[in-house]
Amino acid sequence: MSQSAAIPTGNAPYSDLPPIISAFFEAKARKGLSFDAIAKQIGKDEVWLAAAFYGQAKFEEADLKKVAEILEIPVANAEGQLGSHWWPNRGLGPMPPQDPVIYRLYEGVLVYGHAIKAIIHEKFGDGIMSMIDCDIHITRKPHPKGDRVVLTFDGKFLPYAKW
Amino acid sequence: MSQSAAIPTGNAPYSDLPPIISAFFEAKARKGLSFDAIAKQIGKDEVWLAAAFYGQAKFEEADLKKVAEILEIPVANAEGQLGSHWWPNRGLGPMPPQDPVIYRLYEGVLVYGHAIKAIIHEKFGDGIMSMIDCDIHITRKPHPKGDRVVLTFDGKFLPYAKW
Amino acid sequence: MSQSAAIPTGNAPYSDLPPIISAFFEAKARKGLSFDAIAKQIGKDEVWLAAAFYGQAKFEEADLKKVAEILEIPVANAEGQLGSHWWPNRGLGPMPPQDPVIYRLYEGVLVYGHAIKAIIHEKFGDGIMSMIDCDIHITRKPHPKGDRVVLTFDGKFLPYAKW
Amino acid sequence: MSQSAAIPTGNAPYSDLPPIISAFFEAKARKGLSFDAIAKQIGKDEVWLAAAFYGQAKFEEADLKKVAEILEIPVANAEGQLGSHWWPNRGLGPMPPQDPVIYRLYEGVLVYGHAIKAIIHEKFGDGIMSMIDCDIHITRKPHPKGDRVVLTFDGKFLPYAKW
Amino acid sequence: MSQSAAIPTGNAPYSDLPPIISAFFEAKARKGLSFDAIAKQIGKDEVWLAAAFYGQAKFEEADLKKVAEILEIPVANAEGQLGSHWWPNRGLGPMPPQDPVIYRLYEGVLVYGHAIKAIIHEKFGDGIMSMIDCDIHITRKPHPKGDRVVLTFDGKFLPYAKW
Amino acid sequence: MSQSAAIPTGNAPYSDLPPIISAFFEAKARKGLSFDAIAKQIGKDEVWLAAAFYGQAKFEEADLKKVAEILEIPVANAEGQLGSHWWPNRGLGPMPPQDPVIYRLYEGVLVYGHAIKAIIHEKFGDGIMSMIDCDIHITRKPHPKGDRVVLTFDGKFLPYAKW
Amino acid sequence: MSQSAAIPTGNAPYSDLPPIISAFFEAKARKGLSFDAIAKQIGKDEVWLAAAFYGQAKFEEADLKKVAEILEIPVANAEGQLGSHWWPNRGLGPMPPQDPVIYRLYEGVLVYGHAIKAIIHEKFGDGIMSMIDCDIHITRKPHPKGDRVVLTFDGKFLPYAKW
Amino acid sequence: MSQSAAIPTGNAPYSDLPPIISAFFEAKARKGLSFDAIAKQIGKDEVWLAAAFYGQAKFEEADLKKVAEILEIPVANAEGQLGSHWWPNRGLGPMPPQDPVIYRLYEGVLVYGHAIKAIIHEKFGDGIMSMIDCDIHITRKPHPKGDRVVLTFDGKFLPYAKW
Amino acid sequence: MSQSAAIPTGNAPYSDLPPIISAFFEAKARKGLSFDAIAKQIGKDEVWLAAAFYGQAKFEEADLKKVAEILEIPVANAEGQLGSHWWPNRGLGPMPPQDPVIYRLYEGVLVYGHAIKAIIHEKFGDGIMSMIDCDIHITRKPHPKGDRVVLTFDGKFLPYAKW
Amino acid sequence: MSQSAAIPTGNAPYSDLPPIISAFFEAKARKGLSFDAIAKQIGKDEVWLAAAFYGQAKFEEADLKKVAEILEIPVANAEGQLGSHWWPNRGLGPMPPQDPVIYRLYEGVLVYGHAIKAIIHEKFGDGIMSMIDCDIHITRKPHPKGDRVVLTFDGKFLPYAKW
Repeated sequence: MSQSAAIPTGNAPYSDLPPIISAFFEAKARKGLSFDAIAKQIGKDEVWLAAAFYGQAKFEEADLKKVAEILEIPVANAEGQLGSHWWPNRGLGPMPPQDPVIYRLYEGVLVYGHAIKAIIHEKFGDGIMSMIDCDIHITRKPHPKGDRVVLTFDGKFLPYAKW
Repeated sequence: MSQSAAIPTGNAPYSDLPPIISAFFEAKARKGLSFDAIAKQIGKDEVWLAAAFYGQAKFEEADLKKVAEILEIPVANAEGQLGSHWWPNRGLGPMPPQDPVIYRLYEGVLVYGHAIKAIIHEKFGDGIMSMIDCDIHITRKPHPKGDRVVLTFDGKFLPYAKW
Repeated sequence: MSQSAAIPTGNAPYSDLPPIISAFFEAKARKGLSFDAIAKQIGKDEVWLAAAFYGQAKFEEADLKKVAEILEIPVANAEGQLGSHWWPNRGLGPMPPQDPVIYRLYEGVLVYGHAIKAIIHEKFGDGIMSMIDCDIHITRKPHPKGDRVVLTFDGKFLPYAKW
Repeated sequence: MSQSAAIPTGNAPYSDLPPIISAFFEAKARKGLSFDAIAKQIGKDEVWLAAAFYGQAKFEEADLKKVAEILEIPVANAEGQLGSHWWPNRGLGPMPPQDPVIYRLYEGVLVYGHAIKAIIHEKFGDGIMSMIDCDIHITRKPHPKGDRVVLTFDGKFLPYAKW
Repeated sequence: MSQSAAIPTGNAPYSDLPPIISAFFEAKARKGLSFDAIAKQIGKDEVWLAAAFYGQAKFEEADLKKVAEILEIPVANAEGQLGSHWWPNRGLGPMPPQDPVIYRLYEGVLVYGHAIKAIIHEKFGDGIMSMIDCDIHITRKPHPKGDRVVLTFDGKFLPYAKW
Repeated sequence: MSQSAAIPTGNAPYSDLPPIISAFFEAKARKGLSFDAIAKQIGKDEVWLAAAFYGQAKFEEADLKKVAEILEIPVANAEGQLGSHWWPNRGLGPMPPQDPVIYRLYEGVLVYGHAIKAIIHEKFGDGIMSMIDCDIHITRKPHPKGDRVVLTFDGKFLPYAKW
Repeated sequence: MSQSAAIPTGNAPYSDLPPIISAFFEAKARKGLSFDAIAKQIGKDEVWLAAAFYGQAKFEEADLKKVAEILEIPVANAEGQLGSHWWPNRGLGPMPPQDPVIYRLYEGVLVYGHAIKAIIHEKFGDGIMSMIDCDIHITRKPHPKGDRVVLTFDGKFLPYAKW
Repeated sequence: MSQSAAIPTGNAPYSDLPPIISAFFEAKARKGLSFDAIAKQIGKDEVWLAAAFYGQAKFEEADLKKVAEILEIPVANAEGQLGSHWWPNRGLGPMPPQDPVIYRLYEGVLVYGHAIKAIIHEKFGDGIMSMIDCDIHITRKPHPKGDRVVLTFDGKFLPYAKW
Repeated sequence: MSQSAAIPTGNAPYSDLPPIISAFFEAKARKGLSFDAIAKQIGKDEVWLAAAFYGQAKFEEADLKKVAEILEIPVANAEGQLGSHWWPNRGLGPMPPQDPVIYRLYEGVLVYGHAIKAIIHEKFGDGIMSMIDCDIHITRKPHPKGDRVVLTFDGKFLPYAKW
Repeated sequence: MSQSAAIPTGNAPYSDLPPIISAFFEAKARKGLSFDAIAKQIGKDEVWLAAAFYGQAKFEEADLKKVAEILEIPVANAEGQLGSHWWPNRGLGPMPPQDPVIYRLYEGVLVYGHAIKAIIHEKFGDGIMSMIDCDIHITRKPHPKGDRVVLTFDGKFLPYAKW
C-alpha cells in the first residue's frame, strides 16, 4: 500500500534504481521496521544499510539474502537485481541539495571545509581522509536544551604518493 | 617572510578577507604554532579557531585580543578589522570544491546524504541537525593499518515548526 | 475532472510526489475549497497547509486524517503514502525560479539579502534567523492605491556555537 | 582604521561599488552608529538604509547630504559618486548564496515558494507581490525560548495585464 | 491528426502543461486558424492569446469558454483544466534559449540591456518597466529591403519604494 | 569628481572597457548631459548612443569626434582607443541579470518568448527578427494611472536559407 | 526493425520531436539511403536535409511530399506533423556537447572564435556572418596522409544598424 | 597610444596573456597593418596569425622573429615571452559566448551539429574531423544582395581506434 | 531476470540507448560472462568492449554478429539496432561525475592536468594526445600493500597545424 | 626576462600561487632545463615535479632545497613560501577545461568513464582506483605512423568499507 512512501521524491537519481529497491522500501514500511532493526540482524550499521537501500552501497550475497528474508521478498529477485553483476552507480543528483537536512551537511563543507582541511594537514601532513574506507555513525545525544545529533566520520588517512 | 604561505591559494573568497587575516597566518607560520596550540590558550577547539582564521567564525573581543597578543600583532589592528562591527560573510567559493581533502567531505554528502537524512528522521522525526549550533572535532585515531581521521559533527536537532 | 489543474506544471519535482497528492489537489478543486478553509478546520495556517500539499511539510497523523476526511479521500490511502514512514524531500527544483511570483521572492534575496543580514547582526549578533523554526503568514492589506500583500517570516534567532 | 571591517568580504559585487561606500562603512564603524540610529535621523527604515549602503537603493539628494553630514564625510564627494547621475546596479553576486544568514532566506523560497504563490493567488488572483513597491521591516520579538526575528515584506499586489 | 505539430518540441516545460493545451493546439491546426483570428473573436491581442496557449497567461472564464467553442472543444474539459483553480506556472525552461528566434530576444538583453536601463533611468528616475502590467504587440512593417518585425513592450513604470 | 558614478558597478565586463569610456561617463555626468542631449547633436538615437557608451556599439569616426568635442575630451585619445582598430566585444556578463530593470527584459523572454516566436512565424514564416539590423527606441507615454515605458524593437525579418 | 538505430541517443531534445521523424529515420535506414541520395532527388544539399530530419529546418510542402514518397511514408502523416503549422524549435540540448564529433566544432569556436571575429571585422567592418542566411557544405577531400573533411559556412555578412 | 584598443575587452582570458601580446596589438594598430598584411610576409594565413596574436597558436622561432621585426618590437622580448618555453593555454573563457559574431559560430553548432555529424559519418564512417590538424580560411565573396563570408574548416578525418 | 542489474542507474544517457543494449547486459549477466571473456573471443580488449556495451564505440559487422551469438541474442535484432546506420552519440551525461570511481579519473584531470600538458609539450612540442586514436588498457598489478590498478592511455601525438 | 612565459595564462587558479612559483618557472626557462632534467636530480618523476611546480604537490624539505639550488633561487625564499606551513590547495579552475590537451583527458572520462568503471569492478570488486596513492608516468613511444603518448596511472585499489 505505502510503497512509494519512503522513497525520496523530487530526486531523479533514485527513480531509476533497480525496481527491487522500491519493494525493499515498501516492505520495510509495511512491517514498520527501522533501518536499525534490520541492520542489527545482519550485523551492520544502520547508516550503511540505509545507503545500501538508496543504491549507494553493495550488499554481499549473504547480507542481501538475509535482508530479503527479513522483508519477505523473493531472494532470487533481490539477487537478480542487486547481485554479483550489479555495481552501485553512486551519487545524489543535482547539486547543491535543496532538502534542508542534506543542505546542512553541504553547508558544513562550505563553512568549515578549509578549517577541517587545515587541521587534517596539521595532524597528519599532506593527504586526505578517505571517504571510501570510512565508517559513518549517528547517535542521539540527550541534552537538556534539546537532544543533539552526533554524526561521526571515521576515515583512513591517505598520504599523497610522491613518485 | 612566509606570510602568503598558509593562505589557501586558488580560492578567491579568501583573497578579500580583511588584511589582518594575512598577518595572522604569517605570524602563526613564523612562530611555528599549530591551531591547536593557539586554541588551547584561549580555551577553544582547534577547528573553531581555524574557521575563525579563515573568516568563517567571529572572535569575541577577549579572544581576539588574546590571539593578537599570542601572535604579537597590534591588538588595535585586529580589533579594527575583526572587531564588533565586522560580521563573517561565510562561504567557500566556487563549488564543487576541487581540492581532494575538501572534495571528500562533499562526496560524503553525495554518497551518504540520503542515508544520513533517513537515519536522522528515524531517530528524531521531521527536522534537521543544526549547522549553526554545532561543534566539530577532529581526532587522530591510531590504527595498525594506518591511522584514521575521526571527524565529528555534534549538532542540535531542530524540529520543523508547524503553525 | 480537474485534478491536474492545480498542480504546478513545468516543475518536475512535484511530478514525483506521492500520487495521493494529486488526489488532494483534485478534491480541493472539485469542492472549491481554499487552503484557508481547510486549514481552519485543522487549526493550522493556510501557508503551512499549502506547503504540506506541495510535499514540503509533514502532516501529523491526526491532521492527515482530518484533511482526508474533509476531502473525502480514503484515510488509509493518505496514511499509506504520507504517513509515519514518509519524510518530505524538500525543494523547488531548478533555480533561479522562472515564475514571476516566486522570482520576486528570490529577487528580495538578491537585492535585500545583505541589508537583512546586516540588520539581523546589529539586532541579535552573530547568528541566523531559523527557517526551520519559522512561521510564515500572508495577509491582504487594503490600500487605496491597490491592496498589498503582507508576507511575514517569524523565525527563531539562532546564535553560532563557539566551542 | 577599520574601514574594510564592515564591508562584506568574499563577495565580489560589492568590491566595485563607488569608493565612497567604503568611507560610509568606515565612518559608521568608527562612530559606532547602527543603521537604525542613522536611519532615524533621516526618517527612513534601517533596512532601507542598509540597502542603500550596499548600493541596492538610491539616496535622494537631501538624504544623501544628511547621511554624509552625520558621518562627517565631505558632502561633495558623496554627491559626486552617489548623486543624480548614479543609478544602483542591483544584485548579490554568485548564487546560491553561501552565507548561512542569506541562505536561509533563499531556503524560504525553495521550501515555501509554491505555497506562498498558491496563497497569493487564492487571496488576490493572478498576479504578483511587487518587490519594487515593497517595504521591508525587521523587528526583534522577545520569546522565552529564544527571541525571534520577524521579517516582513509589505508589497503591492500587481495583477497581470490582459490586452 | 496534427496535434503534436504545433507544440514546441525540445522544450520540457510545455510537455507537462494540462493536456487540454494539446487539444487546443491540435484544433487550431486542424481548423487552420491563426492566433490573430481567434484573438479577434475574444477581443484580445494575438500575443496575449499565444501566451495563454503556452500556459503563460490565465484565461478569464468567459474567454476560455469562447475559445473552447471556437475550437469545438468541450467547455467543461477546458474549464476543468484551466479554470478558476489553475494558475499558470510561468517560465521557458533551460536558459539560455537555443532556438534562434527566442535567442535574438535574449541577445537584445545581452547587448542593449544596460543601454535600455540607462535610458529608462534618465527618462523616469529609479525604477523599472513592469513586465506584469505590460502589453506586447507585434506588427509587420513593409520595407523595400525586406519587411520588418516591430515588437513593442508597453509597460508601466514602477518607481522604487523608499520607506 | 564623479567619474565612477555612472559606470555600472557589480558588473565585471564594463570594468575592462577602454579607459576612455570612463572619461566619457565622467564628462557626461559633470556636464549634466543626458544621452538624449548628446545623441541629438550627432543625429543618433539615445538608446544607440548609450549602447556605444557601454562599449556595445561602434562609433563612426565623425560621430566619435563630435562626441569627444561635446564632452571636451581630447579627440586623439578617443580615436586611439575607440577608433578604426577597435571592435566592440559585446555582452553583458554573468546571466541571468540580477538588476531588476534588466531582469524584467529577461523575464519578457521567459514568459513571452514562445508566444512572440509563434506570432513571428504566423506573420512571416520560418525565420527570425534580426537583432543586428534592429533599431530600438524608448518613449515615455503619459498615463493617468502612471506613465508607461514604450520599448520598441524594429528588426528586419530574415528567412532561413534552404540550400 | 531498426527505427531507433539512427536517432541519436543520449540527447533529450530529439526524443520529443514529432513521431514521424522516427519513421523517417527508420525508413531511411531500412532502404539503405544516404542523406545525399535523398537530397539529390529534391534538389537540396545533404547537410540541409539532415538538419530537416533532426527537426532543425522546415520542409516546404512540395519537398516534404517528395521525401515522404521516397521513404514510402503516408504523405498525410508527414504533412499532419511537419506541415504548415509546425515550426522547428531549434537547439541541441545540454551544452557543451559531449560527442567528440560535435565537440570538435565547439572547440573550433573556443580556440579560433576571436581570430575569426577579428578577420571578419578586418574584411567587412562591424557586423556578423549570418547563421540564418547561411549555406553549409561538407566535402571529402582526398589526401595521401588521410582524407580530409572540408566544412564550409557560406553566410551573408550583416552590418550592425546605427539608428 | 591606442594599445588597449584592439585587445578584446570583457573577456578575462586575454587579460592574462603575456604582456608582449598587448605590444603586438598596439604596434599593429599604430602601423595600420591588417592581419593579412603581416601574415603574407611570414607566409601564413591571416586566421592563423590572428589566433597566434590571441595566444591560441604558437609561433615558430623564425616567424616570431619576423613578426617582431615587422612590428618593430624588440625580438628578445618577444622570444622571452612567447619563445620555446611558452605553450599556449588555449580557450575563450566563459561560455556560451555573448558577442554576436562568435555566438553565430556557436549557434552553427547548436542548430547544425547533429546534421554535420551525420554527414561526416555517412561520408567517412565512425570518426571525427580533427580540430588540431585543421586549416581555417575566410574569404569575402561578392554577392549582389550583399557580400558573403565564406568560412572553411579543412580538417583531417580521424577514425576511432578499435583495440 | 536480472537484466537491469548491470546497466548503470542514476545516469540518464544510458537509459535511451537502443534497447538491444539492455538485452546485451542482461544476457552477459545471466551467462556470468566477464567483458574480458567476451572480448577475447572477438579479439578485442575488454575496455573497448565495455565501451561498446555502453554505446561509446561502434561494432564492426563481424564483431557484432559474434557478440550476439555468444550472448544468444538474435543477430538480426543486434544488426537492426547497432548496425551500419547507427552511430554512437558519445558522452557521459551531467558533469562532474558523482560516482567515486569515475570522479577519481576526473580528479586526475583537475590535479594533474597542467602537469601532464607540460610534459607532453616538453616531450613532443605543441600538440595533443589523441583520444580518438587511443588504446586504453587496465591491468591488475599485485602489490604486498594492496593490489594496484594500472590504467594506460596509449594515444597518437597530433601536432597543431600551422597554415 | 621570460618569467611569465611558462606560467599558464587564462587560468586564474595559478595566478594566486605563492610568488616563488613564478621565480621557479622563470629560472627553469632561463636555464633551459626540462622538468625531466630537474626531476632526475632529486630522484622524482617529471610528472610529479611538474605538478609541484603548478602547486599541486608538496615538496619535502630536502627536495625543495635541492630544486632551489638547481634553479639558483634563495633557499630561504622557497622554504618561506612552500615550506612546512604551506599546503597545496589543489584544483584546475573552471571546468570543463578549454585547452585541447587537457580537454582530451577530460574526454577520456566522458567517453570511457563507465567502461573503465566496469572493468575495475570486474577485476577488483566494489571499490575505486585511488588518485591519492597514484603514480603517473608519460613516455614517448616511437611509431612509424607518428609517435605516441603513453600515459599511465598506477593507483592503489581501495575497496569500500562496510561497517
